[in-house]
Amino acid sequence: MTEGSADVAGLFDPDRVAVVGATEREGSVGRAVTENLLDSYAGTTLPVNPRRETVLGEPCLDGVAEADADVAVVAVPPDYVLDVIEECGEAGVDNVVVLTAGFGETGADGAARERDLRETAEAYDMALVGPNSLGVMATSLSMNATFGPALPPAGNVSFMSQSGAFVTAVVDWALEAGLGFNDIVSLGNKSVLDETDFVRAWGDDSDTDVIVGYLESVVDGRGFVAAARETTPDTPVVVVKSGRTDAGAQAASSHTGAIAGADSAYEAGLDAAGVLRATSVQELFDSARALAGGLVPDSDGVAVVTNAGGPGVMATDAVGDADRLRLASFSDATISDLQGTMPAEANVYNPVDVIGDADVGRLQTALDTTLADGDVGSAVVITAPTATLDFAALGDAVADTATDHDVPVAVCLMGGETLAPARETFRERSIPSYFDPARAVAGLEALAEYRDIRGRRYEEPEPIDADRERVREILSQVEERGDNRLGVEAMELFDAYGIPTPEGEVVDDPTAAAEVAARIDGDVVMKIVSPDILHKSDIGGVRVGVSAADVADTYEDLVSRARSYQPDARILGVQVQEMLDLDDGVETIVGSHRDPQFGPLVMFGLGGVFVEVLEDTTFRLAPVAAGEAEQMTADIDAAPLLRGARGRTPVDLDATVDAIRRVSQLVADFPSIVELDVNPLVATPDGVRAVDLRLTVDPEQLQ
Amino acid sequence: MTEGSADVAGLFDPDRVAVVGATEREGSVGRAVTENLLDSYAGTTLPVNPRRETVLGEPCLDGVAEADADVAVVAVPPDYVLDVIEECGEAGVDNVVVLTAGFGETGADGAARERDLRETAEAYDMALVGPNSLGVMATSLSMNATFGPALPPAGNVSFMSQSGAFVTAVVDWALEAGLGFNDIVSLGNKSVLDETDFVRAWGDDSDTDVIVGYLESVVDGRGFVAAARETTPDTPVVVVKSGRTDAGAQAASSHTGAIAGADSAYEAGLDAAGVLRATSVQELFDSARALAGGLVPDSDGVAVVTNAGGPGVMATDAVGDADRLRLASFSDATISDLQGTMPAEANVYNPVDVIGDADVGRLQTALDTTLADGDVGSAVVITAPTATLDFAALGDAVADTATDHDVPVAVCLMGGETLAPARETFRERSIPSYFDPARAVAGLEALAEYRDIRGRRYEEPEPIDADRERVREILSQVEERGDNRLGVEAMELFDAYGIPTPEGEVVDDPTAAAEVAARIDGDVVMKIVSPDILHKSDIGGVRVGVSAADVADTYEDLVSRARSYQPDARILGVQVQEMLDLDDGVETIVGSHRDPQFGPLVMFGLGGVFVEVLEDTTFRLAPVAAGEAEQMTADIDAAPLLRGARGRTPVDLDATVDAIRRVSQLVADFPSIVELDVNPLVATPDGVRAVDLRLTVDPEQLQ
Repeated sequence: MTEGSADVAGLFDPDRVAVVGATEREGSVGRAVTENLLDSYAGTTLPVNPRRETVLGEPCLDGVAEADADVAVVAVPPDYVLDVIEECGEAGVDNVVVLTAGFGETGADGAARERDLRETAEAYDMALVGPNSLGVMATSLSMNATFGPALPPAGNVSFMSQSGAFVTAVVDWALEAGLGFNDIVSLGNKSVLDETDFVRAWGDDSDTDVIVGYLESVVDGRGFVAAARETTPDTPVVVVKSGRTDAGAQAASSHTGAIAGADSAYEAGLDAAGVLRATSVQELFDSARALAGGLVPDSDGVAVVTNAGGPGVMATDAVGDADRLRLASFSDATISDLQGTMPAEANVYNPVDVIGDADVGRLQTALDTTLADGDVGSAVVITAPTATLDFAALGDAVADTATDHDVPVAVCLMGGETLAPARETFRERSIPSYFDPARAVAGLEALAEYRDIRGRRYEEPEPIDADRERVREILSQVEERGDNRLGVEAMELFDAYGIPTPEGEVVDDPTAAAEVAARIDGDVVMKIVSPDILHKSDIGGVRVGVSAADVADTYEDLVSRARSYQPDARILGVQVQEMLDLDDGVETIVGSHRDPQFGPLVMFGLGGVFVEVLEDTTFRLAPVAAGEAEQMTADIDAAPLLRGARGRTPVDLDATVDAIRRVSQLVADFPSIVELDVNPLVATPDGVRAVDLRLTVDPEQLQ
Repeated sequence: MTEGSADVAGLFDPDRVAVVGATEREGSVGRAVTENLLDSYAGTTLPVNPRRETVLGEPCLDGVAEADADVAVVAVPPDYVLDVIEECGEAGVDNVVVLTAGFGETGADGAARERDLRETAEAYDMALVGPNSLGVMATSLSMNATFGPALPPAGNVSFMSQSGAFVTAVVDWALEAGLGFNDIVSLGNKSVLDETDFVRAWGDDSDTDVIVGYLESVVDGRGFVAAARETTPDTPVVVVKSGRTDAGAQAASSHTGAIAGADSAYEAGLDAAGVLRATSVQELFDSARALAGGLVPDSDGVAVVTNAGGPGVMATDAVGDADRLRLASFSDATISDLQGTMPAEANVYNPVDVIGDADVGRLQTALDTTLADGDVGSAVVITAPTATLDFAALGDAVADTATDHDVPVAVCLMGGETLAPARETFRERSIPSYFDPARAVAGLEALAEYRDIRGRRYEEPEPIDADRERVREILSQVEERGDNRLGVEAMELFDAYGIPTPEGEVVDDPTAAAEVAARIDGDVVMKIVSPDILHKSDIGGVRVGVSAADVADTYEDLVSRARSYQPDARILGVQVQEMLDLDDGVETIVGSHRDPQFGPLVMFGLGGVFVEVLEDTTFRLAPVAAGEAEQMTADIDAAPLLRGARGRTPVDLDATVDAIRRVSQLVADFPSIVELDVNPLVATPDGVRAVDLRLTVDPEQLQ
């Protein structure tokens, strides 16, 4: 949908809801949604059906025009939907929820129907959910405008889902999972309103403190990033984007009919958006419950307070596993306070073991003391059932203490029925509780991740002074050649964008080759240049360490090998290049490809033979600012190599960052560059050199 | 404990249990355990307390001698425990459970008390649990001989825990977690009986189908491996070994007083034992529930059958993430069968979406058809609540179909109360059910892992013909030198064990250096040899590519640099070594260290600068057989590099395997070798060469 999200909010705040297609037929969508609304909705429910006088005892209207409704829920057969939308538009109903299925998800006829629907809705500037939606819910009005289950408990989490069944499942599960919801939408086919609109609308909604999403695709990647960047500083967003794996992507595409881009693009896009990504349902809602507490840790140090030693060790392991957390180091004052209040057998160092005979008072004292410690940014409280711990009193004691200190606390309630009273209190008081210590720690980790997102400053990529005209000329070579690949013959692209290359040139006769070599200090590398020979080394098309005297002969030899290997290959010449000293260098790769949802991406990683084997790479949306490019050099596993591990001299990181930034701007400037690989980009203590180049150009996109 | 586990089984099958230290004092251990036994134990409970006539209405005996008990539970104060053990021994009570705390976990006095206790128990050949144990449970006899919670539901899982509180927690949680137990033991201080004894005893117990453990240490690593290898072909064992991380290990050690070895040793040891390792409580019991079903998949292909598209995609992602699973490819017959029985809107390709209006019959038909497919080794069934699916009937329908096909099925019940009837049936019929599709798939993954363990053939390491006498001499150099480190001056170790090295020698004058270089084809590498100079390259003590003519001068130069760097360094000479061509080679590392629990380990990984940065390594217990060594070369991330990724020539894998095997035998043969690093071991298409060596020797262990 286009700008402005005022209409979207109207979906969740109507005084009057019309159900177009209301009926009494058992098992029908029209009956289910009418019943759900009549059941509890605080506003007025208006059944619309020209064939009936009443529905479920309510008077029934002939058309939506008579209803004066704020929201119309549409449950008529597919062939009638367009007329109803038209009617809504005429009647000034801006908010429409289309439950009817049989559109884009069913084939060509349905897709055509959906196009018409979208055009009509857009003509009336309508906020339309669906089609093929389960509906919407707003707990603040007890409004259940779905044909699904009963309303979940109220809370501060709003939830959008690209799967209607998943809404049903989560709502049914909400009570035992300790989840409370504000607004819920089943997105359906996302014909008009999509994830971007709800992120924007709920970002502005004071009753929504956490936005949770289940997505199988993002319609407009860049638009989503822009909206989320405005939302996430105030309201955390956490999503499962499924179709992560090849098998999953295929399943998602057959489920929704949408073609999703590569997962690396979603990874980069969600990161750029400041959205937390969960990989399972459990992680999604575990994070949501922690975030719903509204606090973030101001230190990575975690205190563990437990009445059971073993589970304390498990929590400590989980803290050790977490990227953003560590076990807090208590001050001497904290330790001496604990020594003064705990029994001699207690462990007063972190993890604090108040031991098995602790009552609620002792546990609370220990928690109070540790939360006051300056290094403690969050805490895990672990309780196993004992004869001395009163679980009816535990919940308020822990919640009061956490509130006093304004420090996030996650609780492990390690037991079943015995602990139920505490579980209930923690739910009411928005303290997340879990059985498994690892899950409690994961909840705190989500808070630390959100704290980092909240602290982000998004920088505009610094402008780059480039010779764009020259690049245009180089790329247009593909038109003449009737081809879409370029190799080292396009190395001048790098000069045009200020990316350093080794000394050298592509030449097309042996004498010129010798002249180039004469200008270069030391031996040279020579490579055959042909758009038709992809794997140059396989045919002996690369020679390393050629001395000046041998250059002319080597030229002839390389060309004759290429000709005998592939007689019809177009040979553009031979590249003669300075040999780089790799002793202190690291071969890296900078690459790019274009994603259907998120546009150009830039990739950085460990290059050479390692790039394919170890897949040690990281992606961002292009172009990147210097800060982002620097983060990329820190994100890969091999980062310490660049920074001088094992007594090596560090490489020139500024130059590496600069090269990433320039490549990212190049691909952003030229949509015709579909794919690009600089492999290797050799990084040394004295700078970087782009040594080899492959790119794929889409001639249709040439400017 | 020593050989034989007959006594251990007796702990869980007594006719008569004596409680020594039975009392009525509120809040006491002696009262709690007596009450628990009197509550439900099918045998006879015999309170023993010379100061009382009756306890809780039962007649009280003066001493254990009068009880004629099969098991004595001891809850007397610490100072009286030894006398009671003695008394038990005299009375012929072989099975004793000591609940009393205040032993090794409390300091020097306690440790001394524990030594006495162990000696006495061993003198009487007693199967003794504890001290500092919560007790034992046997659901078959309704025997709760703990001072903890009520008995859990009966089942086929036996459970041992090094944390008593964790037993309490798990037992309290068992009902809602869908867990059923056979025997349970709280291991306490493991003074006599430890994890090895219970693995052996439960391996022989026909009522135990799965063994679950929470361990903070393993007392005797090699003994545990031997016992587990006999048990795991018939009975799966799954454990959490906590203290995985540095912080966790420190916490575990302060909790139990035990010094645990490095986690890499536990990883290698548990793998060698055929034990599944879980990293969280949830994973532990999720795996246990899947294993309790008793089936393993005979194909890696997974069928997903769902009434909800989105969750089907999530399950497919989880299958894509799993190492040992993939989405099954259905045969044409399967697809055509499904097309014949499913509605047109259904998806008949995997994941099979029977769509939202499916009833139990349709779901069952789809499952029946897919389970019959030859590529399907296991299945995930996913159900979200719908109006058409009867959850009272679902459980038996799915369980019957799974049983008919003898194929493991995991179920996602995606909802709360609505699905409770099905959850109950699945629990009764030993079909694991979960909310999260990712957890259901993880359950199946555990089954696939166990299938692979069951299929293992443990091979004896092939004998190696080595000059052990020569090694003894080389290692004894450290005695003369008053030092415990050896470097390249000990390269002859490799010759003695048949491990190839580059041509070369350590010499102590320039003339000899020139002579060695003259014998070598091409340039040489020269390195200073001194036990006092650890980082040779940092002081310019290494020269690469020295031509024959320069060798004598380089010798002098290296020595003079070393002298000026460290005047008092002992200089043993200079190593003159053939230069290896690394173009087609891969630098690997073979290392070893000795673990306090598991003895010598052998490590293999990517060498050179990458070993510390990427930590791409794998560990095994030494010595290894050829099959294990080959698996090591496949386990590292860089494995494809060895096997010829990206058009490279594969390295000589047989030679690599042979070198690993020989190093592993070397360290196994010589306990005096505390640490050893061969870095790099250069692997090329033509063989391997051990290029550098560092080892640490324990002079006390020299033979």
